[in-house]
Amino acid sequence: MPKTQYFRMNRRFQIPLKRDLSSIISLLNIENHDKFKIMIRTAILTMSDKGSRGERMDKSGQVIKEMIETLPAEIVSYEIIPDERDIIKERLIHLSDMTKADLIITTGGTGLSPRDVTPDVTLDIIDKEVPGMAEAMRAESLKKAPTSMISRAVVGTRGETLIINLPGSPKAVRENLSVVLPAIPHAIEKLKGDQRDCSELIGNNQ
Amino acid sequence: MPKTQYFRMNRRFQIPLKRDLSSIISLLNIENHDKFKIMIRTAILTMSDKGSRGERMDKSGQVIKEMIETLPAEIVSYEIIPDERDIIKERLIHLSDMTKADLIITTGGTGLSPRDVTPDVTLDIIDKEVPGMAEAMRAESLKKAPTSMISRAVVGTRGETLIINLPGSPKAVRENLSVVLPAIPHAIEKLKGDQRDCSELIGNNQ
Amino acid sequence: MPKTQYFRMNRRFQIPLKRDLSSIISLLNIENHDKFKIMIRTAILTMSDKGSRGERMDKSGQVIKEMIETLPAEIVSYEIIPDERDIIKERLIHLSDMTKADLIITTGGTGLSPRDVTPDVTLDIIDKEVPGMAEAMRAESLKKAPTSMISRAVVGTRGETLIINLPGSPKAVRENLSVVLPAIPHAIEKLKGDQRDCSELIGNNQ
Repeated sequence: MPKTQYFRMNRRFQIPLKRDLSSIISLLNIENHDKFKIMIRTAILTMSDKGSRGERMDKSGQVIKEMIETLPAEIVSYEIIPDERDIIKERLIHLSDMTKADLIITTGGTGLSPRDVTPDVTLDIIDKEVPGMAEAMRAESLKKAPTSMISRAVVGTRGETLIINLPGSPKAVRENLSVVLPAIPHAIEKLKGDQRDCSELIGNNQ
Repeated sequence: MPKTQYFRMNRRFQIPLKRDLSSIISLLNIENHDKFKIMIRTAILTMSDKGSRGERMDKSGQVIKEMIETLPAEIVSYEIIPDERDIIKERLIHLSDMTKADLIITTGGTGLSPRDVTPDVTLDIIDKEVPGMAEAMRAESLKKAPTSMISRAVVGTRGETLIINLPGSPKAVRENLSVVLPAIPHAIEKLKGDQRDCSELIGNNQ
Repeated sequence: MPKTQYFRMNRRFQIPLKRDLSSIISLLNIENHDKFKIMIRTAILTMSDKGSRGERMDKSGQVIKEMIETLPAEIVSYEIIPDERDIIKERLIHLSDMTKADLIITTGGTGLSPRDVTPDVTLDIIDKEVPGMAEAMRAESLKKAPTSMISRAVVGTRGETLIINLPGSPKAVRENLSVVLPAIPHAIEKLKGDQRDCSELIGNNQ
C-alpha cells in the first residue's frame, strides 16, 4: 500500500504540512465552530497515488479551493490520499461524522481504471444519492469531450454532509464544479433542515 | 407522527372528504373496472406534513389532476399523507397491488431535507427503475433553475404500475410532468405486455 | 422456454451457422489472441424471443457490426438469445470471464415489457456502473422521440469487459451507438489499466 501523505492548509493554501494520520485527525476536529458561522465547512479530498507520495502537485485541489472560496465557505480539511478503498472509506466517514464537514469535495478516481474506486466507496457510505448533480456535470462536460461520459462521479449525502465526486484533471474539476457550484448553498441549507422556500444560508449549529 | 388526513376526489376534484384510513382503503378498491376501459387508472399521492394536517392547500395535486386528464386517464385515488416512510411505503404498495393503479404520481419529499424520503421509499418498493424519465425531467428543469438538480425524484415500476415522483412545488410539478406526459401512454402499454411497435392504448384487463 | 438459436459470424458477417450451445462456447474461446492486437474484441448479444426462434431477421445486430467495425475492433462472438434471465446472465458472464471480450454490446430487452430484463440482468453481473454513457444515449434519443426515455439501458464493467445495452430497434441502435462510439476506445484503454492521459489504443494482453 502506498505511503499516505497528508497536508493541512492554512487560509492561503500556501503551507502544506506533512503529518501522520493521528495528529491530522486531531487537528481537523475543530471544536470552535463560532468563527465558521454562515460558512460552508468544506473538506477537500484528493485521490492520487502519485500525489499521496509527493510525486505530483495537486493542482485539482487548488482549483477546488479557489472556486469554493467564491461561496460563503471555509476549507476545514485538505488531504491527499492514495486510491485505496479502505483509506477513502475511513476518510469520508471521518470527515462526515467527526469533522462534521458540511461539504466534502473529492477529486480523482472516478474513471474506469482498476484503481478508480472513489464512486464505488462513495456509494457505499452515503445515505442518499443525488443523481441530478452528477447528471448535470456530465451533461455539461459532454458538450466538450465525449470521453467525459465515462466519469462515474457520484453525489450524495451522509447525515448532514453533502459529498461531491469530481474527476481528477484540473480542467475537468473546473468544468464540473462550475456546474454544481450555484446549487451547493441551497442544497446544504435543505440538508440542515431548513424548511423555507427561499432563505439566507444559516450557520452550522449542530 | 403527524395526524393523517385523506381526501377522496370526485370527478371534478371539488369535494374533498375527510375519512379515516380504513374507510378510504375500501373506497379505493374500485371493483368495477369496466368503466375504466381505455383509461389510465391514476393515483395521486401528495406527501406533505402540513397538507396532511389540513394546514396547506394541495395545489400540486390539483396541477397533476388537470394535466393527467389531458391523457385518456381517470383519477382513481387522491390522498395527502405526511412525509413518513412507513405510511408512504404502505400507500405505494396498496395503490400498486390492491388498487391496481396503472399510474401513481407522487408530489413532494424529493429534496434533501431530513423529512424528504419519497425517492428512498420508492426505490425500496419498485421492481425496475426507469432512470430516463427522471433524467429527462431534471435536464429540462435545469434549464430554468440550478436548484432543480437536487431533485432526487425516482421513476420505476412495480408489477404493472408505473410510479413517478414529482417535486413538491406546483411550478416544478407542471414543468416536470409536462416532460414525461407524452411518454406515459406508451410506457403503460408496454408495461401491460403490449408487443406491438405502435398501438392504441388498450384497456386494463388484469 | 423458447428454443435458442446461435449464430457465429465470420469476418464479413455473411455466414450465420446454427450450432448448439456447447460447440459455440468452445468456438468462442479463441486462444490465439495475437491476431487481435490493437483490436477491441467485441461480442454482440441480441435478445429476441422471435429472433432466437429464427422468426425475425436480426437487423440490429447487423447495424452494431457495421458501426463497431469503424473502430479498431473485431467481432469475436455474435449470438441471438431469448429474453430469458438465466440465459442472458450465463452468456454475459461467459463472454466476459471466459471469452475475455473487451466489449459486449447487447440489443433488445431494455424497455418496460414484462420480458424486457436485459438491464436488470446486466445490473446483477457488473462490478461498476457507467451511468454517463447510458445518460448520454438517452439525452440524444430524447431529442427525437419522447418514448426513448423509457429505455432502461445500462452500461457497466465486469472485470476488464465493458458492457453496453442498446434498445432493440435498428433505428434506436444506430442512434444510441453513434453517441457512445467515440468514447469506447478510451473507455477500454482505461479499463485495461492504461494510466496515460492521452494514448494510443493498446493491445489486449491479459
